[in-house]
Amino acid sequence: MCSDQPSAQPVGRGAKVRAAVHAATLAELVNKGYAALSVEHVAQRAGVHKTTVYRRWKDRESLLADALAEHMAMDIPVPDTGAIESDLRALARSIVHTFTSPNGQALLAAMFTGAAHLPEIATARRHVFDDRLARAEPVVTRAIQRGELPGGTDPAELLKTLAAPIYLRLLITADPVDETTADQAVRVTLTAARAGVLRTDSQPPL
Amino acid sequence: MCSDQPSAQPVGRGAKVRAAVHAATLAELVNKGYAALSVEHVAQRAGVHKTTVYRRWKDRESLLADALAEHMAMDIPVPDTGAIESDLRALARSIVHTFTSPNGQALLAAMFTGAAHLPEIATARRHVFDDRLARAEPVVTRAIQRGELPGGTDPAELLKTLAAPIYLRLLITADPVDETTADQAVRVTLTAARAGVLRTDSQPPL
Repeated sequence: MCSDQPSAQPVGRGAKVRAAVHAATLAELVNKGYAALSVEHVAQRAGVHKTTVYRRWKDRESLLADALAEHMAMDIPVPDTGAIESDLRALARSIVHTFTSPNGQALLAAMFTGAAHLPEIATARRHVFDDRLARAEPVVTRAIQRGELPGGTDPAELLKTLAAPIYLRLLITADPVDETTADQAVRVTLTAARAGVLRTDSQPPL
Repeated sequence: MCSDQPSAQPVGRGAKVRAAVHAATLAELVNKGYAALSVEHVAQRAGVHKTTVYRRWKDRESLLADALAEHMAMDIPVPDTGAIESDLRALARSIVHTFTSPNGQALLAAMFTGAAHLPEIATARRHVFDDRLARAEPVVTRAIQRGELPGGTDPAELLKTLAAPIYLRLLITADPVDETTADQAVRVTLTAARAGVLRTDSQPPL
């Protein structure tokens, strides 16, 4: 019963299984909500046995965190255009496009509303955000190397400055979120970064 | 039965009733959550008849929005120190103090998690935020008049730039939120504002 032999129509191994399970996890989350999310349903939807899932992820929370992080990683690629301004523009616009798409809005709602009070969701949210930051940091370090930004500019601080006004509008205000929002976030962030306000070393007291 | 004559121990009229009903609304929200929030319970806790509540607020949603906005208005006073830097610092630090206090955290949780998926809560959240923006705008307009900020600086845009990194940390990342967070938000915002990046008139294309 718990055999994990390939079925009549094998899904494949490794990357293919991961992708299928991730997609099934997000589909379950978006369609049925966090409360109804179970490894059993995910396995069923992905066409794998649930032991296959448990062999890779210890529980549904780590599965969800991993699926969300992977989804963001694919949906918001880290640009490398050779210039900080166009890199940040691409990054900010990807965030906007991701979360204003129907699928992205459903994910945002799942992460911030229905199940948002559960500690596991808060953990998944932070995990996803930290993962995004870590992946995008090279955008900033490359700009420092090219001499476009002051040495000591803090990549995490810069990327949070970029993301903050977009999330404020997505989660709190009723303002439309579009490419103008993204471009304005880039202007503010670059102005602060170039002025040395986003450096890691201690800032002068206010 | 629905008489609204003063009871044996009259609470008083006007401002006193409003204050008592507001306080009761937030206490009910924090202690029992949005789902259990009812005009009946609020009236009971405030020591007024429920028709007294319905005469001033059409339903529990408008009552909640009003109570939250009033609470923020009292808890986050609009400073007028004579200089934009100290005004913004006071404002940002008030936001931080409000939402890191036990009561403020409970309110934040009520607005963003438990009941956050309800359209009425989303509306209340926007209402509260818009109210905050409208009240704080003089901070910016006075700075423009004093020549501290470029003419055409958009007060709402500036105040959102100030609030965004604080809310990002409160709602998404696991970073500590303290006066350092507030002061850093002021630095970024002022740098952008002084550089003319927060003006209403159209920005140069990126």
